[in-house]
Amino acid sequence: MVPRTIEWIGDIAGCVELVDQTLLPGRLEQVQITDVKVMFEAIQSLKVRGAPAIGIAGAMGLVLAVRGAQTKDREEFLKLIDSQADYLDSSRPTAVNLAWALKRLRNLAHKQTGSSVAQIKQMLLAEAKDIRDEDAATCRAIGQNGVALIKPGMKILTHCNAGSLATAEYGTALAPLYLAREKGVAFSVYADETRPLLQGSRLTAWELSQGGIDVTIICDSVAGHLMSLGRVDLVITGADRIAANGDAANKIGTYSVACLARHHKVPFYIAAPASTFDLSIADGTEIPIEQRGAEEVTNGFGRRTAPEDVKVYSPAFDVTPGELITAIITDLGVIQPVNTKTIARLMG
Amino acid sequence: MVPRTIEWIGDIAGCVELVDQTLLPGRLEQVQITDVKVMFEAIQSLKVRGAPAIGIAGAMGLVLAVRGAQTKDREEFLKLIDSQADYLDSSRPTAVNLAWALKRLRNLAHKQTGSSVAQIKQMLLAEAKDIRDEDAATCRAIGQNGVALIKPGMKILTHCNAGSLATAEYGTALAPLYLAREKGVAFSVYADETRPLLQGSRLTAWELSQGGIDVTIICDSVAGHLMSLGRVDLVITGADRIAANGDAANKIGTYSVACLARHHKVPFYIAAPASTFDLSIADGTEIPIEQRGAEEVTNGFGRRTAPEDVKVYSPAFDVTPGELITAIITDLGVIQPVNTKTIARLMG
Repeated sequence: MVPRTIEWIGDIAGCVELVDQTLLPGRLEQVQITDVKVMFEAIQSLKVRGAPAIGIAGAMGLVLAVRGAQTKDREEFLKLIDSQADYLDSSRPTAVNLAWALKRLRNLAHKQTGSSVAQIKQMLLAEAKDIRDEDAATCRAIGQNGVALIKPGMKILTHCNAGSLATAEYGTALAPLYLAREKGVAFSVYADETRPLLQGSRLTAWELSQGGIDVTIICDSVAGHLMSLGRVDLVITGADRIAANGDAANKIGTYSVACLARHHKVPFYIAAPASTFDLSIADGTEIPIEQRGAEEVTNGFGRRTAPEDVKVYSPAFDVTPGELITAIITDLGVIQPVNTKTIARLMG
Repeated sequence: MVPRTIEWIGDIAGCVELVDQTLLPGRLEQVQITDVKVMFEAIQSLKVRGAPAIGIAGAMGLVLAVRGAQTKDREEFLKLIDSQADYLDSSRPTAVNLAWALKRLRNLAHKQTGSSVAQIKQMLLAEAKDIRDEDAATCRAIGQNGVALIKPGMKILTHCNAGSLATAEYGTALAPLYLAREKGVAFSVYADETRPLLQGSRLTAWELSQGGIDVTIICDSVAGHLMSLGRVDLVITGADRIAANGDAANKIGTYSVACLARHHKVPFYIAAPASTFDLSIADGTEIPIEQRGAEEVTNGFGRRTAPEDVKVYSPAFDVTPGELITAIITDLGVIQPVNTKTIARLMG
């Protein structure tokens, strides 16, 4: 079985333990993190990745950042919390869960007018742990709300990794699959390898294999061909941020898959926790899109595979319009059709 | 400048010299080939690739295969030619140019009822060289027929490598670009990296840079996102085999790009010599699709990036239906709209 993606070990003097996902599938290694700067780097370098897992990492990172504060002055401590939360929030700009988790800890701290700094530190740790445990429960709820979609014999396509490695447990897009497997439903999965960082072949194929699910890797460019052969019955992916109208940011390439699904009349689902919704933005044009470095494309496999000094355009995410999404499966229920009204009804 | 992709050096006792494309862009190295088995391996391992270049390689490979024959018996020699042509033809099943070039040499040999074995050997060499020279002229004609499409300021997307490295010179898809550049038209190109073997980043980006053309590499999964931003004005690719109705086999991923172009109302062109048409097949369902080994996906560039023993589905090609193709640019003229009638009119 896959170990827990991210966990707090011990009391307030303890550490965060996380699976270093950059080493998978070659090596399963857990790293212990005791310093916020190391956590910042772990998020930025994708040692921990996946919107929900980043949220947990951010919350635990904030505890690491403030637990050693010497001050006994509440106001000074709150300022430290705010500045460290801003710092952690800048590690990855697209996923809303990171900002959401940090805000949750900040709000909690600011509300404790009668508590000491030491008490607030304990509360922050408890809250970070809660976020982790809630995420596991949330993912299981997503799985329960989506499991009925997975029918015997189905061929399912997924993009990137929205599995247990991207969350506390179960995953988002993969949660309905794990629950279907628990129920004994037999199906097969195509995993887009997901360039440039190959989360599909490195992580999704690995964790599905570990879970006993039949999985086949394809290059991202194969999805259209597979659909034209009638070999994809359903597409399901995660999301990093969803606007009020259902426009969903997810790993680069998701939008292409959604267009191809529409062209071939294949249903396209997104699975994401309620915390992924950012109702403060009307549509996807307001979602900031992180740009990744050229090296991930030109030098990704241990060998230079492009000319020196060549230009590279490498956005980490794209936005799939709500109108291309058959339904969004959340922990609170299923949104179908996807539009501002149906989203407001469930999330409001 | 880029050296000639493939050339015969010297007389009948000479050798084939070709650019080893598996080493690009890191190293520009020409290999000399004197043995048909080495040529077979060079075709299969993609040292030489691109439908027209494979045709030239096949023809020159056949000369290598039979030039040393001791027999003076014409019938025995013709049998050797036939069996060696069949052998070479099996190196890659999808490209029609290989079969076309080999058939051209076979037919020539079979027609020479009054010639000696030694004379036929000389004729085969001359024919192989002719195929090379004709290909250069053909590509230039494609360029001339397509150059008017390339307008100042355009952003052009291409997939795989259908450039000078894929042909004797100029290329097919890239020929209109090189000719536009000669005329002083300024435009920019997005090159799909083209997994699994990265012909786009390794070869297209390299040769366009060498030719002074503004090029940016993208992962294959970025094309849809770029189109949604209005940053692609035109798509142009090559083809490996085109059926009588215009269905075109080309590098895996071409079909996805064509679907995305249709979705975004971006014109999608194919550029290919007349020899790419296989009028003996009615449509694309009859085109055999070569399957590539899993290692190219799981262990592509010096590092294992997928779990051991994972399943991989890796077709080398897909088929784009004629109805998704705005026009086919050939050396004989432009086919638009693309259908059985318009193709028969130009090719018949």
